[in-house]
Parts: sequence; structure tokens; C-alpha cells
Amino acid sequence: MKDVQNQHDPRRIEIQKVGVKDVKYPISVLDKKNQTQQTVATINMYADLPHDFKGTHMSRFIDVVNEYYVDISMNNFLEMLDKVRMLLDASRAYGEVIFPYFIEKQAPVSGERSMMEYVCEYVGEVSDQYKHFYVGIQVPITTVCPCSQEISDFGAHNQRGMVRLKLLFDKFFWIEDIISIAEQSGSSEVYTLLKREDEKYITEQAFKRPRFVEDVVREVTQKLEETGEFRWFSVEAENYESIHNHSAYAYVERGTIEQGR
Amino acid sequence: MKDVQNQHDPRRIEIQKVGVKDVKYPISVLDKKNQTQQTVATINMYADLPHDFKGTHMSRFIDVVNEYYVDISMNNFLEMLDKVRMLLDASRAYGEVIFPYFIEKQAPVSGERSMMEYVCEYVGEVSDQYKHFYVGIQVPITTVCPCSQEISDFGAHNQRGMVRLKLLFDKFFWIEDIISIAEQSGSSEVYTLLKREDEKYITEQAFKRPRFVEDVVREVTQKLEETGEFRWFSVEAENYESIHNHSAYAYVERGTIEQGR
Amino acid sequence: MKDVQNQHDPRRIEIQKVGVKDVKYPISVLDKKNQTQQTVATINMYADLPHDFKGTHMSRFIDVVNEYYVDISMNNFLEMLDKVRMLLDASRAYGEVIFPYFIEKQAPVSGERSMMEYVCEYVGEVSDQYKHFYVGIQVPITTVCPCSQEISDFGAHNQRGMVRLKLLFDKFFWIEDIISIAEQSGSSEVYTLLKREDEKYITEQAFKRPRFVEDVVREVTQKLEETGEFRWFSVEAENYESIHNHSAYAYVERGTIEQGR
Amino acid sequence: MKDVQNQHDPRRIEIQKVGVKDVKYPISVLDKKNQTQQTVATINMYADLPHDFKGTHMSRFIDVVNEYYVDISMNNFLEMLDKVRMLLDASRAYGEVIFPYFIEKQAPVSGERSMMEYVCEYVGEVSDQYKHFYVGIQVPITTVCPCSQEISDFGAHNQRGMVRLKLLFDKFFWIEDIISIAEQSGSSEVYTLLKREDEKYITEQAFKRPRFVEDVVREVTQKLEETGEFRWFSVEAENYESIHNHSAYAYVERGTIEQGR
Repeated sequence: MKDVQNQHDPRRIEIQKVGVKDVKYPISVLDKKNQTQQTVATINMYADLPHDFKGTHMSRFIDVVNEYYVDISMNNFLEMLDKVRMLLDASRAYGEVIFPYFIEKQAPVSGERSMMEYVCEYVGEVSDQYKHFYVGIQVPITTVCPCSQEISDFGAHNQRGMVRLKLLFDKFFWIEDIISIAEQSGSSEVYTLLKREDEKYITEQAFKRPRFVEDVVREVTQKLEETGEFRWFSVEAENYESIHNHSAYAYVERGTIEQGR
Repeated sequence: MKDVQNQHDPRRIEIQKVGVKDVKYPISVLDKKNQTQQTVATINMYADLPHDFKGTHMSRFIDVVNEYYVDISMNNFLEMLDKVRMLLDASRAYGEVIFPYFIEKQAPVSGERSMMEYVCEYVGEVSDQYKHFYVGIQVPITTVCPCSQEISDFGAHNQRGMVRLKLLFDKFFWIEDIISIAEQSGSSEVYTLLKREDEKYITEQAFKRPRFVEDVVREVTQKLEETGEFRWFSVEAENYESIHNHSAYAYVERGTIEQGR
Repeated sequence: MKDVQNQHDPRRIEIQKVGVKDVKYPISVLDKKNQTQQTVATINMYADLPHDFKGTHMSRFIDVVNEYYVDISMNNFLEMLDKVRMLLDASRAYGEVIFPYFIEKQAPVSGERSMMEYVCEYVGEVSDQYKHFYVGIQVPITTVCPCSQEISDFGAHNQRGMVRLKLLFDKFFWIEDIISIAEQSGSSEVYTLLKREDEKYITEQAFKRPRFVEDVVREVTQKLEETGEFRWFSVEAENYESIHNHSAYAYVERGTIEQGR
Repeated sequence: MKDVQNQHDPRRIEIQKVGVKDVKYPISVLDKKNQTQQTVATINMYADLPHDFKGTHMSRFIDVVNEYYVDISMNNFLEMLDKVRMLLDASRAYGEVIFPYFIEKQAPVSGERSMMEYVCEYVGEVSDQYKHFYVGIQVPITTVCPCSQEISDFGAHNQRGMVRLKLLFDKFFWIEDIISIAEQSGSSEVYTLLKREDEKYITEQAFKRPRFVEDVVREVTQKLEETGEFRWFSVEAENYESIHNHSAYAYVERGTIEQGR
């Protein structure tokens, strides 16, 4: 059968990224408490294509997913992208794996246990000269507005917020540890299961710790810098404002990534 | 050219609904203050198909959209569905038109003006024996939790909430009037533009009017019944809880719709 | 601590549904080939609330999720809703569990294996007088347009389509068997991994079996009726038309559900 | 009233972006045929915040939206961002405005008219040293797979695809002209309203012009370079594959943007 993709292309236009997008796959990742966790992922994988080839071979990306989905831990992710690069004879390979990750949390007073979802992602790029890869983590929090609290005779508007982190990967770290940092930087943590005594505790804690989105990104930034573990990271905080139908948003980025994407 | 759709189908299976879905179109609707408002809609339109026809004629649904999009006000909507029914020689026609609707609001103290979005929908069904049609409206509000307020020494968690109404259409009403009812049934209204003095006012108002989702649906229900204008309606309240990563939800339905869907 | 929810409500308005919405949780379900499958779910659970109670107890819904998430198979689902009903002292309980389900498929010629995602849902309602529960399944397919094929000198437009089934549950069945029925009713099945020889086979097969959305819902309907296993079901087919930016859609419903929602 | 936002922040962390996100607003833009077009937008606006200020003033972003929404044409967009920068006394301001844009199209044979939606966006950044701004446009197309056509005895899989362009803005251009370029680079254009004679024409045209996603991005790239009007642009093509439940994807970027984002 003719290999149409392998035909010569005369247009002299290199394609930076070509591949598969929105592939849904079950995957396993590392879990600090339970060794491994089974979850489901949305996967995008691309490679570059030299100017003189007509097309890439899409099925080979899935071949690589098939080889790695039983263990897509951080340590395997760059290896997986290298495999894509080899198999497709490309100079660069790109990958994005987005998945919900669950951690069992205990309510602060009652000690009741329940599972919390944190949406995570791996985003990486490899060539023969560099490899880089960041881990993204989304952490829901509560924020009480310092301005509303200060100017009002009583009360203060508060809301659910989302902290989104991206951390350049150098060596292995536990997602759980980063989530802790983010959860301690809002007015309060968020839980799936709370009894009345927990609700009282959380409300009072939150009102003792009012935070703007600006405060949240600064606090997370300080704590991440103190770890000394990340050459580059970004922190984003979004408040689903309770008095508006839009969000308040803040973004901080620190460090450098040598090779561009 | 052969008319494949008109061919005979031997399977003896009537199709309840067949048509077009997710058609995006610019539309005009009535506006209480400015006569008309131009907005954009997502449109679904279906008709039934007798068991002995192979297919419907999809382009005719778009012909009808083309005829009515310059004025899809409530009064025209059932007429539009009747047109679909005739044109397709069907017993029943169905339509759904979903669109953002904007109203200029004034902040409660500063009087500053800004536009607020309320997502609306028309959903209707006509046959030669009945026509019914409901109007859906989504109204964002703020809610302060009565339990959190009661049990905590200070503060109370609060959050953005959404009230979703469906109102069986009998005679023309203004969307603006229904939105007012819903906005007065939360702890506070929500605004796009607020100055500091407004934020103080809203915070204090909200803390004087704590509301569960249960309270919100009951208050809206009471007020809608007092109008005496709707033979059937439903009210749904959803709180994007600030202390959880999930929602609290309540639903009330009143009255009867004679012909079921 | 005061139990605000247990206070008397004077408004005399019963609430049909109140509870939690969009709870994300890891769950396990039955798997025909591998006994069990771990996946992630979005869960909504509601109960009714008598007119004289101010509020429900939201945390108890999560207590029930905590008890059942390790095995939410079809056989346990109604039991779970009954548990909600008891625990909340309600007359009716409602539940919705939506989850991706993965099945390993083999490409038709090469035999290459890969995982396919089918989004499923359980939707149920129980009282002391009835219990009913349907299983929803989404199955992607390919459809070649019979009209385009007939009127064109060569070629025919085709596209990805989605079949959505809802099946009233009477006794246990395998999701896998229903997926087969849907996959055999399009122009061709859809796969995650295909080699060149598979692509040739699928293209030719699909062009030998052109199908409108009308044909798809009728074929699925016929086959489901032949099984004789479902007192009520509905079948929906949506084509993401390749020549339009909107969908073609068809819907058939058969049988009766005694107790309405 | 105390100005909490103006307080001193001791943490020495500059915030790159802070502002409002997901503001929904009605807007007017330029229209090649009808002078102006009213549509609805999602707006994000941010500014930087020096390390020593505690917070930004969120309401001022809405003040600027209020001033410009009646005419957010390309020529006004950078001026609007400059206004944000001034008003907030910031070094840099950022804006994103995303909106559906409608163009009336004529079917190729019947000449029937209907409206097509193209989702557009303006994304810009200004400082006192540079201003840059790109226009994003999404254009739906049809693509017939060259490989499937070549290896199959008859037929070929085809599907809806989406071309997404980003064009660095230097001087004013018509969105309509760019959409034409993208529509001519697929196997066929996509229409909202087609009669039978159009469907025949489009099917045959598409089968005479098979295109991979790789071909689409290369063709658009060639044509954009021929215009000589854009110092930087990117082109992305995504096929919602009819034989898979995932997409095929390609991306090309050309030229340089001096100042990074």
C-alpha cells in the first residue's frame, strides 16, 4: 500500500507540531500514600515534521501511549517523549497529559475523611539538546476579601477560588507537597466532607486570614521560593467572585526557562 | 437529482425528533428599555418524522431560522415552530433558542452603570392540538450561609449562586421583571461594576439576609405564585460553595403542563 | 451547636430535590473482561424535603458516597439511593453518576489493541413505592451520508457521530453488549489505533453502509427491541456534520416508564 | 473609607498580571459589509502591580470596558489597553476580547444565503516601550484524508476541521479577507445552509482536493506569506477525525515577535 505520508512535499514549510489531540486514556500515576493511582487522562502528543515530508504517522503516537499508560509517572514522562521523537524520527517531541488526581483529606475538627480532586497536567518538550517539562496543579481554596472585611461593619464577601501552579521539573517531587503549600495560602482549605463543627472552624479561620488574589499568588510564590527546588514556576489565582459574575485574577512567574516553547 | 430523504423506509419506526442542533446565529429579541437587543444564539430545531419516510430535509430548518432571526421575540417563537411544522409536513415541531441577554444595572450606592449578562432560552413544542413553550432565565446572585453564620463566632461563608427559572409561557411578560424577582431572593444581587461604597453596602445587606439554596427556591416560588401569571414553573438554585469544590442545589416545580414532553 | 437546617419553615413549600451537585470522586464499576474498572465520576445526589423543614443535611450525601464509591455497579446503585432516602428521612432520593468507561478494542485487520472511552451515566430515583434507574451510554461512530453519496459523481461527506442511549434498568446487563449494538449501527466503528490496512478496510466498509442519523436511531431501536430486555429506552444520534458547522440530530424513544420525574 | 488595596506590601513580589477575567459584555466591532456588527464578548483585562502595593483596583478595568465597548474595533483596542495602563498607573496592561463574528455566505450553486459564525479574539499587551496585539480567528472547514483516498478502492474518510489563526497586528486588515484564505485551504468550505445541488458540488470539490492537517497549515502559511502583511503569525489545524474519537493536529508559526509575553 502506498505510503502517502512519506511522499515528498515541495512547499519548503517545516511544521513545528503535528500529532494527536484529545486522546482519552486510562493511566496510572504515582501516589504518595498508595503507591499508584489509576485515573483517566486527556493526552496530546506532537512532533515536528521536516519541510520535505508530506505527513506524519499518527498511529505511532498511540503506539507510544500504549507502551506508557500503565505508568505515566513524572520520571517516565520525558522518556515517553523521547520515544515519540525516535519513533517518528523527529527533532522535537511535545506532550500534554491532563488528569484528575485524588487525595484523601481529613476534616479539620471531626476528622471525617473524603476524597478531593486536583486536576494535574504534565507538559513537556524534548529535543536532542534539551528536555523540559512542567507539572501543572489546580488547587481549590476559599478566599475572604480583605477590603470588604475592612470597610463593612460586619461580614465580608468570600468565595471559592482556584490556584493554578506550573512547576518546571528538575527532579521528582510529590504533588501532595505542592498542594499543601497552595492550600495554606488561601483564607481556608476546601473539603468535600465537613460536619457542623468543621464548618464553624473553617469559617472562623477564613475570617482571620482574609486574602486578595494578589495575596494568594504572593504567598505561594514565597513558599515555593523557600523550597529552593524550582528553577522556574508560575502561580495563578482566580476568585469566582461572590459579588460579581466574573473573576478576579492574579499571575506571578519566577525564574527562567532556557529553551523556548 | 434523486431525493433520498423522500424514499420509503420499511422499518416502521417513527422518529420523535429529527433536525439541526447547535446552529449559531445572530438574533434580535425584545428589550424592555431599548425596544430590541441584538445578541447571538445557539439554536436546535426538530420535527417528527413518520415511520415510512427515510429522512427529513435539514436545510428547511435553516430556511425558517433565516426568516425569523431578525425578530425572535416570545410572540414570534411559536409561530416560528408552526412554520417548521408546515414546511416539513410534520405533526410536531420542537425548538430551543439559547442566548445571552444584557441589562444595564446601577450599583446600589454609587449609581455606577454596567451591563449584566443573563443567559436565557426559549424551549417550545407545537402540534395541531397544543402549543407550549417555556422561557428559561439564569440569574446570578450571592448567598450567605445561615448555618455558618449561626454557628460561627464571626463571619459566614458565602458564594456566587445561580438561580435558573423555567416559566411556562401563556402571555407575553418581560424577562426584566422575572430577573428582579430572582435577584431579590438571594442574600444580595450581583453586579459587574461596584465601587467601594457599593461593596460595603452589599456585604452588609447580604449578611442581614442569609439564605440556603432551599430558601432561595422557596422565596422565588412564593413571589412567582403571587404574580398569578404562570400555570407552571420551576426554580433551581445552585451555590458554587466557597468551602467545598462542589455545589449545593435545590429544585422546586409548581403547576402542571398538560401535554408532556 | 444549633441545628439551623432542622428549624421549622413556615412557607409551606415542599422542595422536590435538594442535595449536592458536581461532586468529583474516584469510583469502581464492574468490567466484563477485567472484573472491575477504576475510573472517576461526577456525582449529583438529591432528596426531597418536606415543606416544614428549613434545610437538608448536605454532608450526609457525601457519607453515602463514601460508603459506595468502591463499588458503584448497577446492582448497588439503587441500594445507594435507598440509603440516601433513609439517612435523610426523605420520601424520594435521586442520583446521577457520570463516568468515562474504557474498553480495549482490536483494529479490524491488523488486530492492534487500544483503549476506547465511552462516557456512561446512571440516573435513578427511588421512593417507597417505586425505584427506577436508567443507564446512559455514549458511543462514537462514523457515518457516511446516503444523500451525498447518491447525488455525487464520486465521494460522500462523512463525519464522526455520537449515539447516546438511555436504557431503563430491569436486571443487570453488560455495558459492553449495548456498545456493540450501537457500533454496528453506524457506517463504521471508531477506533483509537488504526494502521493503514485498517484505514482502508474501515473506509470501504463505511462507504458500503451509508447512514443518516435517522437510519442510525432506527437500527439501534430495532436491535434493542429484538433483545426484549428493556421496557423503556431512548436512542439519540448526533452527526458533527463535515459540511456544516452544526449537527444533524435524531431521537427515538420506546416503551413506557410508569413513574414520572 | 480605608483603601486597603493602596496599603504597602512588604513581600517584595511584583505581580505580572492582576485584573478581571470572564467579564461578559455586549460589544460592537467593524464589519466589512455592514460597517458595524453587534456581538457579545468575554473579556479579560490585566495590569502589572509593583511589589510595594497590596492590591489593584478591579473596578477601574470595568470603567475602561464601559468606555470602549461601543466600538472595540482593532484600531481602538491598543488605545483601550493604554487607557488601562494609565488609569491603574501600571507599566504594562494586557487584554483579551473573545467574540463570535458572523458573516453572510452564499451557497456555491444555489446561491442561498445564511450566516456563518467565526469565533475571533484580540489579545494584546502594551507598555511605554512597545505595543503588540494579535488577532485570532477560527475558521471551520472540511477535509478529505489523502491517505484514505489513495489506499481505498472507493471513498475516503472526511470530517469537520477547524483552522485557528493568530496574526500579529501591524495595520488594520479585514477579518473577512483572512477567513477567505483559510476557507480556500481546506478540501472544501463549510456552510450553514446548503441545498442538494450545493451538497453535490461540495462533495465532489472536496474529493478533488484531499488535505491532511499538514497540508492545511502549509497552504494557509504560503498564502499568508504571500500577502506580506504579517510580521508574525501562527496557523493551527485540527481535524475532528471521523474514524477516531480524537483529533489530528498541526501547527506552524512564522516570523518573530520582538517583545515576549
